[in-house]
Amino acid sequence: MSASPGASDWNATRPGEVEGGDPARADATLAFVGRIRTPFATRADCPHRGRTDGPDCRIEVDAPWRPALRGIAAGDRLEVLYWMHLARRDLLVQAPKGRAPSGTFALRSPNRPNPVATSVVEVVAVSEEAVTVRGLDCVDGTPLIDLKPARAS
Amino acid sequence: MSASPGASDWNATRPGEVEGGDPARADATLAFVGRIRTPFATRADCPHRGRTDGPDCRIEVDAPWRPALRGIAAGDRLEVLYWMHLARRDLLVQAPKGRAPSGTFALRSPNRPNPVATSVVEVVAVSEEAVTVRGLDCVDGTPLIDLKPARAS
Repeated sequence: MSASPGASDWNATRPGEVEGGDPARADATLAFVGRIRTPFATRADCPHRGRTDGPDCRIEVDAPWRPALRGIAAGDRLEVLYWMHLARRDLLVQAPKGRAPSGTFALRSPNRPNPVATSVVEVVAVSEEAVTVRGLDCVDGTPLIDLKPARAS
Repeated sequence: MSASPGASDWNATRPGEVEGGDPARADATLAFVGRIRTPFATRADCPHRGRTDGPDCRIEVDAPWRPALRGIAAGDRLEVLYWMHLARRDLLVQAPKGRAPSGTFALRSPNRPNPVATSVVEVVAVSEEAVTVRGLDCVDGTPLIDLKPARAS
């Protein structure tokens, strides 16, 4: 585990960044259908991008939604949607370290008006209440929004 | 335009399907950041899958979030996240026409606990308030959740 910078470092607004949007707007609600267990305890521990030769991660599905797992099998490629609960939602222009400022919609930064991440993973195993996968890079405890078959590439 | 079946046909529960989940759960809120204009007036008019040789569609971004478009250019491949506002959220097992029943998480059906769609599109043009793209298959007026650069495939 690497040393973890304080939350102030992660959340500081850098020169060239623009804040805004309309944080009061709540047009729809999401139900968290489970939780993702990973070996990455903090944001500083997360790899920059998930790799299919990375560690096994366990996607735990809450009881009311478990019947929706029927049909998923080891070897499947899934698209995982999850909620980046530690992200800022008010950054319109961002300056990732060492790069020129760019609009949030031109970046895959976790900080965005609606912090919904999409990852493509490979299924290692399935049980009645969880799917074990490889390819995730999110922090342990991340809320799960959805699972669906990955698009053919 | 093809004839459009009534809403009752779209929303009926078929033999073998399972309803459930926890529709009361609201763990996070989404802000709709714009709206997608397509030539598809109803669900019956939508193609089964968007094609990059399909019609131009216009992604209109609401004023508070327009600065986030900076850096998007014609020719870019974007991932578009949108809210399938006409979908059912209570189907755990579904029987798409002519197929055996399958869990919602093993299907890309619009009907899902959190009806967030992801599509990969090609940018045709950008202005200060909108992005014109090809590759969408959603109904006209669909709420926009997010835009981000597509993953390298």
